[in-house]
Amino acid sequence: MCEFVHPRQLKVSKSPWGPEDEIGRLNLITPESRAKVMASIDTSKTYDLSVKYFMGMPSWVAAGDPPFQIWMTHTPKGNTNDDLMSATQEGKELISYSGDAISMYTHCGTHIDTFNHFGYRGKIWNEFNEEQHLGSRHWNKCGPELYPIIVARGVLLDVAGAKGVDMLPDCYGIGKDDLQETMEKQGLSIQEGDVVMIRTGRMTVWPNREKFSNNSPGLNIEGAEYLAGLGAMILGGDNIALEQAPSPEKDNYFPVHTYLFSEVGIPIIEMLWLEDLAKEKIYEVGFIGKAMPIVGATGAPLQPIVFPFK
Amino acid sequence: MCEFVHPRQLKVSKSPWGPEDEIGRLNLITPESRAKVMASIDTSKTYDLSVKYFMGMPSWVAAGDPPFQIWMTHTPKGNTNDDLMSATQEGKELISYSGDAISMYTHCGTHIDTFNHFGYRGKIWNEFNEEQHLGSRHWNKCGPELYPIIVARGVLLDVAGAKGVDMLPDCYGIGKDDLQETMEKQGLSIQEGDVVMIRTGRMTVWPNREKFSNNSPGLNIEGAEYLAGLGAMILGGDNIALEQAPSPEKDNYFPVHTYLFSEVGIPIIEMLWLEDLAKEKIYEVGFIGKAMPIVGATGAPLQPIVFPFK
Amino acid sequence: MCEFVHPRQLKVSKSPWGPEDEIGRLNLITPESRAKVMASIDTSKTYDLSVKYFMGMPSWVAAGDPPFQIWMTHTPKGNTNDDLMSATQEGKELISYSGDAISMYTHCGTHIDTFNHFGYRGKIWNEFNEEQHLGSRHWNKCGPELYPIIVARGVLLDVAGAKGVDMLPDCYGIGKDDLQETMEKQGLSIQEGDVVMIRTGRMTVWPNREKFSNNSPGLNIEGAEYLAGLGAMILGGDNIALEQAPSPEKDNYFPVHTYLFSEVGIPIIEMLWLEDLAKEKIYEVGFIGKAMPIVGATGAPLQPIVFPFK
Amino acid sequence: MCEFVHPRQLKVSKSPWGPEDEIGRLNLITPESRAKVMASIDTSKTYDLSVKYFMGMPSWVAAGDPPFQIWMTHTPKGNTNDDLMSATQEGKELISYSGDAISMYTHCGTHIDTFNHFGYRGKIWNEFNEEQHLGSRHWNKCGPELYPIIVARGVLLDVAGAKGVDMLPDCYGIGKDDLQETMEKQGLSIQEGDVVMIRTGRMTVWPNREKFSNNSPGLNIEGAEYLAGLGAMILGGDNIALEQAPSPEKDNYFPVHTYLFSEVGIPIIEMLWLEDLAKEKIYEVGFIGKAMPIVGATGAPLQPIVFPFK
Repeated sequence: MCEFVHPRQLKVSKSPWGPEDEIGRLNLITPESRAKVMASIDTSKTYDLSVKYFMGMPSWVAAGDPPFQIWMTHTPKGNTNDDLMSATQEGKELISYSGDAISMYTHCGTHIDTFNHFGYRGKIWNEFNEEQHLGSRHWNKCGPELYPIIVARGVLLDVAGAKGVDMLPDCYGIGKDDLQETMEKQGLSIQEGDVVMIRTGRMTVWPNREKFSNNSPGLNIEGAEYLAGLGAMILGGDNIALEQAPSPEKDNYFPVHTYLFSEVGIPIIEMLWLEDLAKEKIYEVGFIGKAMPIVGATGAPLQPIVFPFK
Repeated sequence: MCEFVHPRQLKVSKSPWGPEDEIGRLNLITPESRAKVMASIDTSKTYDLSVKYFMGMPSWVAAGDPPFQIWMTHTPKGNTNDDLMSATQEGKELISYSGDAISMYTHCGTHIDTFNHFGYRGKIWNEFNEEQHLGSRHWNKCGPELYPIIVARGVLLDVAGAKGVDMLPDCYGIGKDDLQETMEKQGLSIQEGDVVMIRTGRMTVWPNREKFSNNSPGLNIEGAEYLAGLGAMILGGDNIALEQAPSPEKDNYFPVHTYLFSEVGIPIIEMLWLEDLAKEKIYEVGFIGKAMPIVGATGAPLQPIVFPFK
Repeated sequence: MCEFVHPRQLKVSKSPWGPEDEIGRLNLITPESRAKVMASIDTSKTYDLSVKYFMGMPSWVAAGDPPFQIWMTHTPKGNTNDDLMSATQEGKELISYSGDAISMYTHCGTHIDTFNHFGYRGKIWNEFNEEQHLGSRHWNKCGPELYPIIVARGVLLDVAGAKGVDMLPDCYGIGKDDLQETMEKQGLSIQEGDVVMIRTGRMTVWPNREKFSNNSPGLNIEGAEYLAGLGAMILGGDNIALEQAPSPEKDNYFPVHTYLFSEVGIPIIEMLWLEDLAKEKIYEVGFIGKAMPIVGATGAPLQPIVFPFK
Repeated sequence: MCEFVHPRQLKVSKSPWGPEDEIGRLNLITPESRAKVMASIDTSKTYDLSVKYFMGMPSWVAAGDPPFQIWMTHTPKGNTNDDLMSATQEGKELISYSGDAISMYTHCGTHIDTFNHFGYRGKIWNEFNEEQHLGSRHWNKCGPELYPIIVARGVLLDVAGAKGVDMLPDCYGIGKDDLQETMEKQGLSIQEGDVVMIRTGRMTVWPNREKFSNNSPGLNIEGAEYLAGLGAMILGGDNIALEQAPSPEKDNYFPVHTYLFSEVGIPIIEMLWLEDLAKEKIYEVGFIGKAMPIVGATGAPLQPIVFPFK
């Protein structure tokens, strides 16, 4: 049983790993924990849990965040008509150079959220604060560039599967009973240090922007407290924001996020592609991933690679 | 010995994997090849070969490509003064929401180049062409979203180390002799399917934009042909563009890129952080990575995770 | 009566102003034409015909174009926590520096469309073509940086007002009869060189994105041919795209645009704020404006300043 | 003689126009002041004082602000290979649709600075403050969308011309004596409500990024106080930041900006193209302009149109 505080208190916690800590429960990762996981995997198969990035993909836009964009910065034909490149005209015609650029909200596609993404009253995990630690462009604390290589046991909790549905109903809140029922049906339990991945079935409507994004079923605060109490290191979901939407609380529009980041130091992974694992009933995996190391960001793309456990 | 075409012909090749092939030598990855690599690794240690993304980092800007940018889309205090969010004022004050967005050239930071990045005379690998396969926003062929999970043997060729220098001289071209000398000193050889990573020592001046970016030492076309002939699946470098700069050829400003992508189907990984491996003289590793799956892109961030071989 | 070709032919025209011409009927502007207009205005009053740029404003996004974005690049507090600026800490605290950046589709807000925005079969006005004149980043022909200072007679045709409605019905196509009826009621006629501004009343639902953007009433091809025949130099509208939406033609989704740009060399101004003029029944004005000179762009912001005629 | 406070005090002022005022001396513009100017102009000639926006143009990048970018969002050929548009394939081939987008620091090209751009210790003009008036994306006070149509007397002070040089020396600080000397040679004086435009000759090296941007000659604080005292409504320059660079003050890197915005309520226009006026020795003009109305921005593109005085 995990020793961390878990009943919700609505204020940020000091980290049990000390006043400099910026990564919370990711401190549970050690060479030994990694080696133990690596010793358990069946290396004959591997799965990718990430979704593609493409024009028009579902993403957070309701609060003004920019949609995913890609555009060409160089095209072969364009180069021959340009003076952007210092090259001979023969060179421009021989060499077909194409380049492109992207822009995106950092919470687009399969990604990990960091602790500076949500806090309480101007403070985040470990009492870092906006006054001293927010620069013009990004937070100077708790960014994903500090995250270690994640090698951990991953556990898929296929809640939709346990209930025999393709997708949980809109707005459904997954609580303790739902999680226990799922664990029982799947015959497994959560251990300290696990990456717990919750399947609502929402990816069955991907990439329909309307259907995927709004009123998502997801974890409720009871479920979050329960998993935090069991020692989960990271919580993941196949939906847009892990948690139930809209929030059942009047003045907290993301109670699960604020709780996990600010009170117990658990990062969240969103928009995981869990369909392949669910179909094959693979519930225990070796989870390997490295967040895109964007200094200070509130979130970062992450393409998890998993190997089933033996 | 690898059977693929390797002496340079200055025109695009048809793929030996058929007319639909978009990934070239990445076809060499199979469940068996992955399992073989995974069986060889020492799981007690792991290394991250990627660099961080930050404001002011070195990147391609000479031809007008945008520098890496991050910016806030929501700040805790800002939210309380905004009407971007539909939340109560109490909620805005309680919940400290921060969000950020990024924009970047897709060849920024540690990344993999895809075959649509360079071709000859309007065509790319396997004779896909600009006329039919370039959309308004991106190529419709050969994007990184098609790349499999890379699990392969990685070989570090520490050319700078073999020559006893911190960094090869500016503009130095690494040819067959340099590579053979390095392999001999390191006591290893290249095998079909390897991710070959060449260390020039350029990361010793990172992140100095001037010193890192211009006139980089790197692979020359002879070296590229040699490694392609040995069966390398991917070529990587610790410098900005793998190859020697400036190009020694008048009308081909990227001879190694065009050769590898268009003629032999070998992707390139650039700006690899090889300093830790070099310091510890770890030359053989299990290389694990999944490119950020940006549909159609010419390049994609990739954070390679490696485990030393036993 | 204007001598230009006007019945629609579905192919691009050579310019009557010669093979180098990139601005079409804007060639009608001369020192004399400007002075004549300036002599006619009542300088005691002036009106701004542009809309504001703000987060969430209506704009073209259905085809993947980016919505208007603004973000901070420097904040006073952020600067004190940053190392982006080379300034003393005392300086950062004393001097409260704020900066911001924007990104937008060039057809956002009140703007003028240029001839490279629409053409036929790879060619635009005056037979410039994609093959030779489109660079990687923008067209090299017909950009707004070439547009002269516009000083011209502006004529408001308040079609909605003439019909006694606040706004024309959704999808309504404004044809020759509607225009003639409006001119008769307003007691004026179109002259060669006029900026003709058509009011549908659509701005009465601004800035409601849904209501403003879709199924807009607007000019139909008959109306466009009629006004082109009368010698209009620029056509403007208070709606999102001047013309009736959706297009009544199966294979031409913007018949009025293609006709005006490619066949008769008439630029279009969209999202004009005509409410103030309409309310005061000011139908003849001196129209003064200079397009934001974005080299090669397909469109450019323009803030028209008008003075009523005496 | 102007009654406003002018000796520098290093703290923000309350506005003489009341606690709600966000536009400072632009309050001097009235229907009468405009009509008076319009009655003075020679309408036979007109001049554009703005520079073009293009890839690679000089702009502020030293502190991480993004350079001007333009890119295609639709190309005629690209559209035929895309599914971004809902159009028939025949339509995509017939209709050659091109679109483009831009991104830029708001202080790029010829533009006006607003009062939220610089303040003292977290406050700006009229004691608006960061705590209450800065949103996540932009300031909620003092944006350019509030600026009236500017019709005012413009006065060119050709300081370089008065001194008989093409360009003032690097870092030169223009003070009271230089301004008086120039006014005397030109035979004119400043009046309350004037747009005073100072020519350093810096545009003679445009668009050389190195030569134009760094160590610019410009106004010093003595000169700024002098012009403020004479009643100038707006100060403009042909250089990157109006004022002398680098700042001669240790802890105030922009003393003229902070003084003008925060203490006397005078906006600044930068990168004015004054070469044509200077060549023709046109020193008094009717200045007409409307800032791009970007809600809350710290700066906004402005294309001034001027007519010589009779």
